[in-house]
Order: sequence, then C-alpha cells, then structure tokens
Amino acid sequence: MKDTRLDRQFAFFREIDKEKEIVRQNFLASGNRRETDAEHAWHMALMAILLAEYANEPIDVLKTVTMLLIHDLVEIDAGDTYAYDEAAQKNKTQRETACAKRIFSILPPDQGRELQELWDEFEAGKTPEAKFARTMDNIQPAMLNAASDGKSWVEHGVQLCQILKRNALTADGSGKLWDYSLNSFIKPHVDAGHIRED
Amino acid sequence: MKDTRLDRQFAFFREIDKEKEIVRQNFLASGNRRETDAEHAWHMALMAILLAEYANEPIDVLKTVTMLLIHDLVEIDAGDTYAYDEAAQKNKTQRETACAKRIFSILPPDQGRELQELWDEFEAGKTPEAKFARTMDNIQPAMLNAASDGKSWVEHGVQLCQILKRNALTADGSGKLWDYSLNSFIKPHVDAGHIRED
Repeated sequence: MKDTRLDRQFAFFREIDKEKEIVRQNFLASGNRRETDAEHAWHMALMAILLAEYANEPIDVLKTVTMLLIHDLVEIDAGDTYAYDEAAQKNKTQRETACAKRIFSILPPDQGRELQELWDEFEAGKTPEAKFARTMDNIQPAMLNAASDGKSWVEHGVQLCQILKRNALTADGSGKLWDYSLNSFIKPHVDAGHIRED
Repeated sequence: MKDTRLDRQFAFFREIDKEKEIVRQNFLASGNRRETDAEHAWHMALMAILLAEYANEPIDVLKTVTMLLIHDLVEIDAGDTYAYDEAAQKNKTQRETACAKRIFSILPPDQGRELQELWDEFEAGKTPEAKFARTMDNIQPAMLNAASDGKSWVEHGVQLCQILKRNALTADGSGKLWDYSLNSFIKPHVDAGHIRED
C-alpha cells in the first residue's frame, strides 16, 4: 500500500494542514483574533472568483484560485513574515524557496512540478494571473484592517508611505480595485489617525 | 459611493469573514485544536483540484471548487450541525435555507443568484460536481480524524454504522476515494478501538 499515488497526495494534504496553525498579523473583521493563513487563502480564493471582472487583463480564474490557495504554504517552514518587518523581509525569499521545494516534492512528481511552477509564477508576478493574485493578497488584509478599525495598523504604528510602498504593484492586477482599496479602506483610516501620515 | 456593485461585493466579503469563527467538531491533524469552517473549505478546495482525476464522472473543477468554498457559509446563521447529532439534523435544512437567502442577497443580484443556484445544486447532490464536492466533504474530516488518532470519534463515541450511514453517498462522487478512505482512515481506527463496532 505504501507510496502509491494516493498515499503521496494524502501525505501532502496532511502536511499542508499545518497552514491552519500559521497566524498572520491582521485581525478578523470582528477584531476578535488574528486570522490564520488557511483562512486568508480561503477568503482570497472566493474574492478572486467574484472580482475577476475587474482584472486589467483577462485571467484564467481556476489558475488564479489555485495560486492563491497554495501561495502561503511556504510559511509552514518559513513562518509569516510581516509585510512591514524590513529585517525579516531580507532572507524571506531564501527561506520560502527551500520550503516550496520540500513541500511540493511530497506530491506525485507531475503534480509537485505543477504547483512548484505555479508558486514560482506567483512570486515572479509577471502573468495576468500572478498580478491579480497579488492584488487580492494586498486588498484582502486592507479590507480586514479597515473593518477592524485599523487595529493592526495602529498596533504596529504603520505609516501611509509603507502601505503605498507595499501596494506599489496592486494596480497592476486591477486599477479599479486599487482605487477602491485606497479610497474605501486606506484613506478613511489616515483621516481617522489609524495610519500615520508622514 | 454607497451601494455600488463593488460596495455590495465587499459587504459580502466582510459578512462571510464570520465563517472563520464557526468551529467544527473535528480536530486539526495535529490535534491541537478544532478547525474552523473557513479552514475546512480551503483544505477541500485544494484537495478537489488535486484529486479531480478520481471523480467517477468528469467534473468542472472551478465549479466544484466554488461550491466547496461557499457551501458552509449558511452556518454563519445556522451554526455547525455535527454530523452525528440526529436531533439537530432535523431542522438543519430550514435554518440553512434561510441563511443562504440572506447571505447571497448581499451580493449584486447576478452573482447572488449564481451562488444561490450553486448552493442549491450542492444540496441536491445530483450533478457530477455536487457528488464530488460531497465526497470531499466526507473524506477531508475522515482524514483529519484518522491523523489526530481518532480524537473526535472517541470523544463522541461514534459507531461504525453511523460513519457508514453518513458516507452512503461518498462513493457516488468517487468510488476510488471512498475505498481509500474506508481502508486507510476508517478501518484502522475500528481495529484500534477508536470507532465503536456495533
């Protein structure tokens, strides 16, 4: 029975269960607790399906959704690197690349290669799907930060210029969604003093 | 600015954030805590993508994934009904139908109708996608129960006949996956005494 195709697939499913125990910085909309990586991925996958109409370029929705469902698996070994922690950002790529290799190689080789390529494509950020997935990855936490009264922005003393830097590529996936995020989620919290303006 | 198409879409995304606070009976593979509905949906969506090859009939993968991502949203009002709580199962349909109507109507009408139809299709269980989604919904918790040493089976004193009844339709989506689940997840825990055999 050991190491059949199904055994490898289920070994992968058990391994990725750990993504549910990786906790992100941002809070749920309710502010009750921080969200997990798996919850974040679920939320973005559904957002991508319902917001695909706003992509700057036509996207393959299933490909984008798959990208979003897997893109944080590398945090199982590498941990969540807070977007505004500049020191930790430095060796992030190295730590995440090693984890991708380990995790995807649990799968049967054809599927492992496919997911590895999809993860590389997300990281490279060149295709319409990778660009739109990045847009989701920036807009979803902005929405939750806004809904929870800027709780994690306040906690970390985040500055507007840091948010704008992080969002430098958000409009590449969807100009419309970046405009919406800026006007509906970010600016009101600059006005409310939850985001520092300097 | 109020009630534009984007406002309705984001109002929906904020509302469904509550799915992250619905806790299921089964534990994570690590046994550390129970999983949330959103984590369960994320896990099954990825499983469906990688296991579609075993569906009895060809399936539209994006449609199946979307079904899995939304099928538990109704628990935001109705709560999680434990599969082996027979009293609570009785008015489950009524509670969940009312919640589906409320939640999907937050969306722009075209998207609300689309998700309502998809949810109805999952509940009816007649199409290849609905059958395969049901297979995922039964196999994912069996895998986690097995991985966590039968923790939630033991806790609730679950009997083999209850598991077989719950899984009456699992093979309709995929005979191969039902065989695998029965032999790899269920039977070893009957042998280990974690599932009662009478």
